[in-house]
Amino acid sequence: MSGKLRIGVLASGSGSNFQSIIDNIKSGSLNAEVAVLITDKPDAGAIDRAKNHGIEHLLLKYSDFKDRDSYFTRAATELKDRKVELVILAGFMRVVSRTLINEYPNRIMNIHPALLPSFPGLHGQSQALEYGVKLAGCTVHFVDEGMDTGPIIIQAAVPAYHDDTEDSLSARILKQEHRIFPLAIRLFSEGRLTVIGRKVFIRGEKADGELINPSA
Amino acid sequence: MSGKLRIGVLASGSGSNFQSIIDNIKSGSLNAEVAVLITDKPDAGAIDRAKNHGIEHLLLKYSDFKDRDSYFTRAATELKDRKVELVILAGFMRVVSRTLINEYPNRIMNIHPALLPSFPGLHGQSQALEYGVKLAGCTVHFVDEGMDTGPIIIQAAVPAYHDDTEDSLSARILKQEHRIFPLAIRLFSEGRLTVIGRKVFIRGEKADGELINPSA
Repeated sequence: MSGKLRIGVLASGSGSNFQSIIDNIKSGSLNAEVAVLITDKPDAGAIDRAKNHGIEHLLLKYSDFKDRDSYFTRAATELKDRKVELVILAGFMRVVSRTLINEYPNRIMNIHPALLPSFPGLHGQSQALEYGVKLAGCTVHFVDEGMDTGPIIIQAAVPAYHDDTEDSLSARILKQEHRIFPLAIRLFSEGRLTVIGRKVFIRGEKADGELINPSA
Repeated sequence: MSGKLRIGVLASGSGSNFQSIIDNIKSGSLNAEVAVLITDKPDAGAIDRAKNHGIEHLLLKYSDFKDRDSYFTRAATELKDRKVELVILAGFMRVVSRTLINEYPNRIMNIHPALLPSFPGLHGQSQALEYGVKLAGCTVHFVDEGMDTGPIIIQAAVPAYHDDTEDSLSARILKQEHRIFPLAIRLFSEGRLTVIGRKVFIRGEKADGELINPSA
């Protein structure tokens, strides 16, 4: 191995989190390489980002598979074939099945635009606005079979203002997403994450507290 | 009126949040006076704090009342008799009944040691630790008939570390409680809070963002 962590990215949308990972690799702050981008949509903006950076892209259309398990069995095969060590869900709009999780236990990361366990599922930002919270945020977590329920790696908070719209709050949260997702991947690449039960132990956390939870 | 907001405090325990309110009044940062402390327990530490500062204390033992409604009807009467404008639940371990809420609509504040809507109810801190969150915190909210469900006024976040105990996390959260509870009361005393639906509108919020959500 080159020492670089081999990442596989799954994305359905514009892929701005995918871009932040690419940028962190380019700048040298993340010792990793993206082995493949898998999308479920032919018009995902993430595809252009892959092309722009010479990253292999694979389209796996959901409708070409008979069920969720067969979809993710195939995804797992493609990832393993490319020796992917860590799978990143960067705005991938499908709930991952057990077949992929079993191949990558505690090696699939997702980012969710809410301070979990508050507001799981779709539209975390608008759920937060409707509830009327004063702090919103985002969460990077390992993926288990639940909906946004896996062990939490990093969270970041942002203020929510009474005159926020879904767009203004989402933009504020997205800035933090672009910061903590690469950070979580870096911690993984440095071998500093250990999952025990529901807890993610982070080696050097206290010494490095400012880094881990800069928002707090 | 003297211009000072008249507060009634309900407490069951040591009353450290009660003390932080007293301290903020003494230092001049809160233009208010505590008209009465009501406790449901004869050994509540809050009683000594009231005595130390010449604040009237009233013991209303729960067992002396036939039900929750009659308890809080009496509490409402005592508060109104003293021209209390804002009721503060400072570690009061009873769920307030409609009889008090109807007398003080959006004029009862509670503090909860979690980033609501996560971890309502008892032991918010240990619930957070068991879940494995990386950000914990506290919430000041207006009281409705639910369990920690009322409109949110201020929230503050603190990091949660993998080696935290309930004590270490609670202490970190408590520091923030002592900061944001007096701040919420001050905003109320300045007439800056307006509740519309589930949302608390804070006049001057944007201009004063650093003050309102200093943790974010």
